[in-house]
Amino acid sequence: MVIRAGDVVTFGGPVRKDVAGYDLRSLFIGSEGTLGIITGAWLRLIPAPEASHTVIAGYRDFRSGVAGLGRVLAYGLTPATLEYFDEGCVGATRRAFPGGLSDDVNFLVLSETDGSAGEADRISDQLMDALKQDAVFLSRTHDPRATAALTRWRSGVSFAVSAQRGGKMSEDIVVPFDKLAAAIQMLGDLEAQFHLPSCSWGHAGDGNLHATFMVDAASPEEITRAELATEALFARALEMHGSVSGEHGLGWVKRSQFHRQFGPAEASLLMGIKLLFDPDNIFNPGKKVILPHE
Amino acid sequence: MVIRAGDVVTFGGPVRKDVAGYDLRSLFIGSEGTLGIITGAWLRLIPAPEASHTVIAGYRDFRSGVAGLGRVLAYGLTPATLEYFDEGCVGATRRAFPGGLSDDVNFLVLSETDGSAGEADRISDQLMDALKQDAVFLSRTHDPRATAALTRWRSGVSFAVSAQRGGKMSEDIVVPFDKLAAAIQMLGDLEAQFHLPSCSWGHAGDGNLHATFMVDAASPEEITRAELATEALFARALEMHGSVSGEHGLGWVKRSQFHRQFGPAEASLLMGIKLLFDPDNIFNPGKKVILPHE
Repeated sequence: MVIRAGDVVTFGGPVRKDVAGYDLRSLFIGSEGTLGIITGAWLRLIPAPEASHTVIAGYRDFRSGVAGLGRVLAYGLTPATLEYFDEGCVGATRRAFPGGLSDDVNFLVLSETDGSAGEADRISDQLMDALKQDAVFLSRTHDPRATAALTRWRSGVSFAVSAQRGGKMSEDIVVPFDKLAAAIQMLGDLEAQFHLPSCSWGHAGDGNLHATFMVDAASPEEITRAELATEALFARALEMHGSVSGEHGLGWVKRSQFHRQFGPAEASLLMGIKLLFDPDNIFNPGKKVILPHE
Repeated sequence: MVIRAGDVVTFGGPVRKDVAGYDLRSLFIGSEGTLGIITGAWLRLIPAPEASHTVIAGYRDFRSGVAGLGRVLAYGLTPATLEYFDEGCVGATRRAFPGGLSDDVNFLVLSETDGSAGEADRISDQLMDALKQDAVFLSRTHDPRATAALTRWRSGVSFAVSAQRGGKMSEDIVVPFDKLAAAIQMLGDLEAQFHLPSCSWGHAGDGNLHATFMVDAASPEEITRAELATEALFARALEMHGSVSGEHGLGWVKRSQFHRQFGPAEASLLMGIKLLFDPDNIFNPGKKVILPHE
């Protein structure tokens, strides 16, 4: 990694364990290019899984679906993916769902299991068991064409949601898993408060929501209203001991959240680390860590 | 965590994902109390495995054994443990080994697999397959009494090695896995060079060696010689792109290695981070990161 005015440093390396220094490798990961320029990396490769299965379950409402997700975690299962799609997403994509969805399905859980053939089977058996209570439908496949059709539907969710009103404002908040139902409910509350249709989907097993307000992209007033709703969304996520970003970082769009997510002591540490690596603030300035004058 | 002169900061938390700031949680882990005092932590619990198996293989020499370990990694297996014991360890514990060891066994591989019953079975099947070539013996058990007997033997290795000459100097170097055989060979070279009996054992899958010189604890001359041999050991580990510590950190004993493991630019970053959290150098001073005046 090139840091400061051109010093080259190496941390990590080809060893699997190393506790001689502080874990600076983890510090670099997700630093959004704000600490320096990574010029080389060792990658650890793992074998492709032998088998994979896809399990999908439909529910009447989010409370039944989230209860099923809770059972998946309580069973100690480790599927490769564990996602949910709320009523707004299901409504926007009902006709595109492979084979169609009956009108009483308003919440979907989609999960993939992988590993050895036996392990993918075992986990998907237990997933089916964990998800069956109150499910309107529950099915499993390892047929490549059926899986590809589901993946195609999944890939279209974001576009279908955008198409509802021409635009959307979507943020990747994260909450502790036990707050997932509360976070979905909270988004409904904000919809009512700000008069903006909303929906969410995401990586349920991680408590990671793509919380979305659907907006008329041609209406500046509506966009301003969505920005206010998003500010409220971030505040609620933090009240739930969550974070404003589960996977996309702060970047430029969420830079204003830096001093909300972190208190003065935490912010001063993050700023100190930024300036230690980049005293001239030349590496992707104004992102991730917001300095006092920025 | 309490840092500086008493500021309380919180990083991490009950969420499974969070990329809003830099990963300071990983920075704290393994910091040996040098950055502050951790006063609270969230722990992520995982279910106890349903089943576990122990596989043990004996070889005539370390090259055959390390080749077997290489096949375990090449198969992409993920046993819970994957350990080795070289000729010196086997010699020191031959009579204590459950059921005895024949004289032609000079190198042991011990591995545990766990998970669901099916997965523990599957991995141990593949382990047996990966380890069988050139093995003098190869066996597997999931009998609790046989496993306990092996664990008792394993726990005694360090004591049996110490008992050979009354003392030992043992360091937890780590090397990239593909350098494991070279590291075992290198220890033999240092034994010849410094006229000190040596042995090693460790977490083979991680390339982590407990590289040991057996010394007469009553001989100051011999202890000095072992210290020189250990310095040479660290230098060779670093030449192999390894580290002076795979798991125990630097502490007080290995503090002199700080400026060998890290170049000036890396050391300045580590010192900068230390002083950012602990400007008065009050948290476990003189460990992990060695400041200029220390």
